[in-house]
Amino acid sequence: MNVTIDGMQYGNWSEKIFREMRAGGVDAVHVTITYHENFRETVANIRAWNLLFERYPDLILHGRTAADVLLAKSTGRTAVFFGSQNASCMEDDIGLIEVLHTLGLRFMQLTYNNQSLLATGCYESEDAGLTRMGREVVAEMNRVGMVVDMSHSAERSTLETIDYSTRPIVISHANPACWHRAKRNKSDTVLKALAAHDGLLGVSTYPHHLAGGSSCTLESYCSMIARAVDLMGASQVAIGTDLCQDQPDSVVEWMRCGRWTKKIDYGEGNAAAPGFPAMPVWFNDNRDFQNIAQGLREFGMSGEEVAGIMGGNWLRFFERNFGPEGA
Amino acid sequence: MNVTIDGMQYGNWSEKIFREMRAGGVDAVHVTITYHENFRETVANIRAWNLLFERYPDLILHGRTAADVLLAKSTGRTAVFFGSQNASCMEDDIGLIEVLHTLGLRFMQLTYNNQSLLATGCYESEDAGLTRMGREVVAEMNRVGMVVDMSHSAERSTLETIDYSTRPIVISHANPACWHRAKRNKSDTVLKALAAHDGLLGVSTYPHHLAGGSSCTLESYCSMIARAVDLMGASQVAIGTDLCQDQPDSVVEWMRCGRWTKKIDYGEGNAAAPGFPAMPVWFNDNRDFQNIAQGLREFGMSGEEVAGIMGGNWLRFFERNFGPEGA
Repeated sequence: MNVTIDGMQYGNWSEKIFREMRAGGVDAVHVTITYHENFRETVANIRAWNLLFERYPDLILHGRTAADVLLAKSTGRTAVFFGSQNASCMEDDIGLIEVLHTLGLRFMQLTYNNQSLLATGCYESEDAGLTRMGREVVAEMNRVGMVVDMSHSAERSTLETIDYSTRPIVISHANPACWHRAKRNKSDTVLKALAAHDGLLGVSTYPHHLAGGSSCTLESYCSMIARAVDLMGASQVAIGTDLCQDQPDSVVEWMRCGRWTKKIDYGEGNAAAPGFPAMPVWFNDNRDFQNIAQGLREFGMSGEEVAGIMGGNWLRFFERNFGPEGA
Repeated sequence: MNVTIDGMQYGNWSEKIFREMRAGGVDAVHVTITYHENFRETVANIRAWNLLFERYPDLILHGRTAADVLLAKSTGRTAVFFGSQNASCMEDDIGLIEVLHTLGLRFMQLTYNNQSLLATGCYESEDAGLTRMGREVVAEMNRVGMVVDMSHSAERSTLETIDYSTRPIVISHANPACWHRAKRNKSDTVLKALAAHDGLLGVSTYPHHLAGGSSCTLESYCSMIARAVDLMGASQVAIGTDLCQDQPDSVVEWMRCGRWTKKIDYGEGNAAAPGFPAMPVWFNDNRDFQNIAQGLREFGMSGEEVAGIMGGNWLRFFERNFGPEGA
């Protein structure tokens, strides 16, 4: 059974978006539920999601295992898997990893753009790799079945984590830097190491990660995916759109500035363009997933390759990596 | 007027200790009120201190400015100044620096032994220096008059912070590594840079920082102070005993392990000797400060030098560095 899975979104969630997911045939999505929120604030976000699950049972369900993707598919709904884009939700407490996993968290980035207690983000000028606490936390994430995500991490930290983790990790939303040189895109070295350890890359549609930005063509995007497949193998590449649907620009300011500075940090933007960039015409919202599948087919990929990239690869990854180690 | 000031203690506070401080002639002390406690937990510790100030008004008072040292001296009490040994109390929020300063916090270490959001601790294998957030926070501490303490930090982070900070910083409790090579003791390079930027070293009596450990003689200790004076100048050296009076060993486990690991980390101790080491006979508790003064005089230091080291240097430092920048 073919499934469509998006490896990362952060929408301003609403019935409208859930209906658009159904229109786009999205069977499962990894959603960011927390950036710089601490544990208690993250629990408040989970509480808000619980209300959405209760309110829209015909459209969404809370995804905890790979089986929930198939349940969603067979009942015409979207399975929503929780993830965090920073380690703030676990504060300084390794014991919160298991607690957060029990609450449904399946992905956690060790860093956002800055240094965390665990590792270094891609906006720091120096990268000292996994910290003492970082090593402890990766081992704990491996134990309980929480996936390490290094999308926003710096290169050395990423390579060390790929190597140190006893289970495969992901870069859920980024593109190859050889296609578009951006701080958030990843070197061939990282992508090859990720694939060699059975990790997954989710390719992003966020304009700052695209060659040509908002004007990037679908053909160019598909050529990038083909290049990633050449580097990593077709089974290690998937989709992670980084779609931030219907979000106000205040949200991108929170992502970039959190509580770490009193100034404005523009991250991938700049003072003249501080907000969310316009999406490419071929991927404006959740209704447009099949445009990507169509583009890949037209680019010459086989049905099997397209099925893997559009969701099958994530599904197999979920099957192996959301439960306790060795289970 | 000569004063006696201790640059760092973490006692299991009681009327007994406060009376011993009076017996030892301690006019002021910088006490650690928080290690890995988050903001709310730190506030609970401040609340506990407020109760002590209310309960023992004849013995102690809450120190906020240098004038409080003189008030304490003239009324036969000890002024207690608050400090933190890690940045946990500010969590990830730069806005909490001013809040904590208003609540009385006058010192904050940027790191304990591990990597923090701000800088690197001395137990990490790699030290990438001040982070993006670290630079923002040092500037904010400079602005409000909270003193940066790098006692537990790694070398590069310490040197960068000495240089980056617009106000002098301290190493409130450590000794020269040239006297006793220990992870927590400091290189000549660090001590000279600290002094060149008008910073202060508080020399420690914690046995792991002493040549000969618990058996260290007073003469050897005074020779170490003389060496620090040679390196830094007599006005840049003071006392910071690191005295942890009446604490159970569970406390040293909290200091070392916090919530970052599920294993036991022995820090400066080891599995055979996991607890607090025995203090040297000439400095067992707060009644013994005048032994150090006597030792320094017998070592040949002038009355002026001894007065500076025993408290005058801290007093001048407090005068200049506890208020808003430029005030």
